[in-house]
Amino acid sequence: MPRQVTSFSNETVKRIRALRDKKARREQGLFLAEGLRIIAEARDSRRLPETIVFASGGLHPLAAEIIAATEAAGGDAIETTPDILSKMSGKDNPQMLLGAYRQPATDLARIDRTSSPLWMVLQSLRDPGNIGTILRTGDAVGAGGLILLDDSADPYSVEAVRASMGAIFTQAVAAARWDEFLLWLRSGPGQLVGTSLKTDTDYLSARYEQPCFLLIGNEQAGLPSAYEAECDLLVKIPMAGRADSLNAAIAAAVMAFQVRASWRG
Amino acid sequence: MPRQVTSFSNETVKRIRALRDKKARREQGLFLAEGLRIIAEARDSRRLPETIVFASGGLHPLAAEIIAATEAAGGDAIETTPDILSKMSGKDNPQMLLGAYRQPATDLARIDRTSSPLWMVLQSLRDPGNIGTILRTGDAVGAGGLILLDDSADPYSVEAVRASMGAIFTQAVAAARWDEFLLWLRSGPGQLVGTSLKTDTDYLSARYEQPCFLLIGNEQAGLPSAYEAECDLLVKIPMAGRADSLNAAIAAAVMAFQVRASWRG
Repeated sequence: MPRQVTSFSNETVKRIRALRDKKARREQGLFLAEGLRIIAEARDSRRLPETIVFASGGLHPLAAEIIAATEAAGGDAIETTPDILSKMSGKDNPQMLLGAYRQPATDLARIDRTSSPLWMVLQSLRDPGNIGTILRTGDAVGAGGLILLDDSADPYSVEAVRASMGAIFTQAVAAARWDEFLLWLRSGPGQLVGTSLKTDTDYLSARYEQPCFLLIGNEQAGLPSAYEAECDLLVKIPMAGRADSLNAAIAAAVMAFQVRASWRG
Repeated sequence: MPRQVTSFSNETVKRIRALRDKKARREQGLFLAEGLRIIAEARDSRRLPETIVFASGGLHPLAAEIIAATEAAGGDAIETTPDILSKMSGKDNPQMLLGAYRQPATDLARIDRTSSPLWMVLQSLRDPGNIGTILRTGDAVGAGGLILLDDSADPYSVEAVRASMGAIFTQAVAAARWDEFLLWLRSGPGQLVGTSLKTDTDYLSARYEQPCFLLIGNEQAGLPSAYEAECDLLVKIPMAGRADSLNAAIAAAVMAFQVRASWRG
């Protein structure tokens, strides 16, 4: 049976609210997903929350089903007021369902590169919305997952999880320093592909090999030269306008769809 | 000579700060751009602000040049403290340069469809970040501009301008109701292309004609059926993963780059 919580000062309320902060996420090893759509997506990927919180009254049948499944799996179900849910989610119009999920380990050893022809690799991406959007794009294009290099934003932040639209549960996620990643990459098959202004190779005519690792650089600085130098292939997306760059999530998508298109052709 | 402003209650400070709200933008007919990069981009597109505000000390030579040009063109230059600039920009780490620009008229009559082979058309997009990102993508891919249908977010909001990375100054922008847009569209050449799940036509094999009008639907609901029915071409971007949709700005970019690729081939 769900526990009833009616106090703002309840320990579970405080613990879940704290998951908006990276430090608390790291300490607890948990992250938040909000809303029935993403939580149902997680369940379809056989992931249930450790704690699920919902507002009293008018529960969607699918929500009720996931709450029951969470309890059956030993998780904690908490029924509370819209006010308290609002405090937990930090929004005026909160989603009526919150789940706190265990963060998977993010070491490279978890990545099975043979499980997919395409992998996204992000170097020091700082915008969690971009990271979530790239997860969502990765799911759409059939990528296996996301490897975060150096000082990237947290893929388990609320904003990244929201932008992923559930792909945080379907895409593998790993984090590593550049040197560590290179060692791992060169220990098996894999073409490292970067976008660059310093090449004449058009992204439309390049030959992409499987597994392909698409390397996307930081939003402001792009890829460091030393990283470009390690790429097996550098390609250019020709720009028709005044600007010389794309939004990082857009560049990742244009490249990923072109790589896939080249294999479908 | 720049005016010195040292009071938070100064009328100009209040008026510029108010430009974060859509109502004030409409009343004043102005919008804000922040930071040297975007303001220099505007100048390169022969657009100067009516009012330019900067913090005392350590001015970049390019900023000084644009401030002088603004004054020479009859605009207002205001030198103030970092504190007041911070209040105007609503951020703790404000850009050291703000410009208030006149909003161009947004009637369809301003759009010269023969000036570009590609136009972006957004139906009720609600996220200003998406609108700014699509402007930036449009610039990169050589689109002529953006037509906003129905209840779209304001392309002149601070968030949209920021995400556009200056493309708000290089892309034409129009706004219209659907009926009005259709009348205008059918009064000249133009292929209206929508993305849909209800077609078998792959976006990679479709034939795109010039000028091509790419229609992107609302983030949540996608395109209404009645709008799809008016399209000259419906295409599908096949999804490999669990999800059946892409982020709106991603879908716009994947389509725009493919349309352009089909013409380059």
